Amino acid sequence: MANPSILILAGDGIGPEVMAEVKKIIGWYDAKRGIAFDVSEDLVGGCAYDKHGTPLHDDTMAKAQEVDCVLLGAVGGPKYDNLDFSVKPERGLLRLRKEMDLYSNLRPAQCFDALADFSSLKKEVVGGLDIVIVRELTSGIYFGEPRGIFTEGNERVGINTQRYTESEIARVARSAFELARRRGNKVCSMEKANVMESGILWRQVVQEIHDKEYPDVALSHMYADAGAMQLCRWPKQFDVIVTDNLFGDLLSDAAAMLTGSLGMLPSASLGAPMANGRPKALYEPVHGSAPDIAGQGKANPIACILSFAMALRYSFDLGDEAARLEQAVEKVLADGVRTADLMGPEGGTPVSTSAMGDAIVAAL
Amino acid sequence: MANPSILILAGDGIGPEVMAEVKKIIGWYDAKRGIAFDVSEDLVGGCAYDKHGTPLHDDTMAKAQEVDCVLLGAVGGPKYDNLDFSVKPERGLLRLRKEMDLYSNLRPAQCFDALADFSSLKKEVVGGLDIVIVRELTSGIYFGEPRGIFTEGNERVGINTQRYTESEIARVARSAFELARRRGNKVCSMEKANVMESGILWRQVVQEIHDKEYPDVALSHMYADAGAMQLCRWPKQFDVIVTDNLFGDLLSDAAAMLTGSLGMLPSASLGAPMANGRPKALYEPVHGSAPDIAGQGKANPIACILSFAMALRYSFDLGDEAARLEQAVEKVLADGVRTADLMGPEGGTPVSTSAMGDAIVAAL
Ligand SMILES: CC(C)[C@H](C(=O)O)[C@@H](O)C(=O)O
Ligand SMILES: CC(C)[C@H](C(=O)O)[C@@H](O)C(=O)O
Repeated sequence: MANPSILILAGDGIGPEVMAEVKKIIGWYDAKRGIAFDVSEDLVGGCAYDKHGTPLHDDTMAKAQEVDCVLLGAVGGPKYDNLDFSVKPERGLLRLRKEMDLYSNLRPAQCFDALADFSSLKKEVVGGLDIVIVRELTSGIYFGEPRGIFTEGNERVGINTQRYTESEIARVARSAFELARRRGNKVCSMEKANVMESGILWRQVVQEIHDKEYPDVALSHMYADAGAMQLCRWPKQFDVIVTDNLFGDLLSDAAAMLTGSLGMLPSASLGAPMANGRPKALYEPVHGSAPDIAGQGKANPIACILSFAMALRYSFDLGDEAARLEQAVEKVLADGVRTADLMGPEGGTPVSTSAMGDAIVAAL
Repeated sequence: MANPSILILAGDGIGPEVMAEVKKIIGWYDAKRGIAFDVSEDLVGGCAYDKHGTPLHDDTMAKAQEVDCVLLGAVGGPKYDNLDFSVKPERGLLRLRKEMDLYSNLRPAQCFDALADFSSLKKEVVGGLDIVIVRELTSGIYFGEPRGIFTEGNERVGINTQRYTESEIARVARSAFELARRRGNKVCSMEKANVMESGILWRQVVQEIHDKEYPDVALSHMYADAGAMQLCRWPKQFDVIVTDNLFGDLLSDAAAMLTGSLGMLPSASLGAPMANGRPKALYEPVHGSAPDIAGQGKANPIACILSFAMALRYSFDLGDEAARLEQAVEKVLADGVRTADLMGPEGGTPVSTSAMGDAIVAAL
């Protein structure tokens, strides 16, 4: 049987640097644990535009559909700021999400003990925090039609459409309830049902799926603005949050920042099971391409490495190996090994991106 | 000449309690400073629904259009959760905003020294914070058509439309630039131009208005998700933030919560100048109707009282009187007078809603 396959799309900015460290980890699993992957690489984002005039070549899209999972670094940078909307680096990522139908985006917001001091929040508010935001990723205002900039009378009008079908809401709700069952068994659903009809439908469908299929999970509903407040006030009240594409974008970024561990946070974007039973999947760090520090060996590769750990768990059913990798990361942190973003007043050993990767390999 | 007129819409929950304290302040200005207002009162929200079957009666709407400004308490409560969308308490508030054309919503996020400890953020992150979020309030996804829940094939679909015209963006941008000139001269505009065409138009128009009319103001642009992050990380980097209706809803609530002073924060919703030169205006606290503590004399009336101070400043050109009222509030806080929400570990004198109002009158 062929080895499981991974397509690496390192992308722009610090993407290639942090992905280089993931490749070391993949190499270690092959050499030391006999767990081999067929790894191929390709371009996405600005670098793909530079080469092909499009942020995602059709051949790359086709490859992404065939592999067992995609690992993505990051896309975008100031060089591409003035490109036409249709070829911006982000469109490459959005096309992957849409065409692979990765409707469920799992974004853990977890506070690493060693880093609790980095949070702008008080230690007692974030210490030990461990919540997951499940963001709908293939619909809503990101993809709804009509959209565009039109002329009406003598002025321009910008239009986007928020659009959710019942089945789109139902499937991401199921994914949140399934996840909650493996965690704290609690889901909070967020929308603006007091203002938006799409929010009313969202609330109804989440409630229906709950009542019919997951009555054992504790479900609550919150308006998204109140949700933003509560995340800032006392995030530990949550276990799993489920919300739409746009609210999920803002709320998960705020939650990630609150942990103080932004350079540490992975994410998984999951779709329906493929013929081999594995879900369509793409894994990527929550942080962006950080063009200001790109190419300087300063980036923290841990978020990308932990994204690979999520791949081990969700795509390859290797939960024990994922835990092994996560423990190696924790050990390295406990030993005081620190990339620049993790250097706090209490000191530690400052290391480069590559030395951090080496330390994690050594700890494995 | 007739006295300037104010329509009080106390609304639901703690609305009537906090508004009772504002009436004491209004009485003080009449008795002690010879500044008299024609005050009338009416219903909005759930209480209007209870009486008239609609959250805002047409007669009330007509009155709101005639007065010099509206003071609003809060709307909503669990009693009304299952009402039809079209008659929910919130629709009363949204109708006022829309028909009075109150396009510019000023939401200060200010951290009161005496209360910095209440923030979930570290003191150095929020101490002295003083920013304003200018939220577009009459357009965007709150009001765009088509909207509703439809049936397509055999499932329901929820639809809302984000829609911004050039002139809608231009006028709220002007209002943000004007405000910035009277403050730190810095505006940050937030949208999702990387994902939404309405965000592209937003960014372009804000930039054009800046270049043509306000080149002296420092302007930057940020994606709204990054904005949510930066508000949580280091809010003091901002002076004035301008953003659309929906992003403004989430971002201003998060910012308000971060200050730790939620029960203290007023807001102003301003429209175009009327025949008498005064802007159409509605003032209301940022906090909601807090049904859990309603009717118990526990609510903090300061946000509502400071909303009246904003009315003195923006509607009646009484900046000195507004400052007098703001100083009275500060003095009372410095003296340790505290409603329940302001009681911290350092103690203070616990008082009721009404005693807080009395203390502020005494300090005036
Ligand atoms: C890069 C951008 C298109 C993307 C989004 O808005 O979804 C990013 O912010 C994210 O959250 O993954
Ligand atoms: C009550 C509700 C309709 C309102 C809004 O969403 O605008 C509130 O959250 C606010 O921010 O004033």
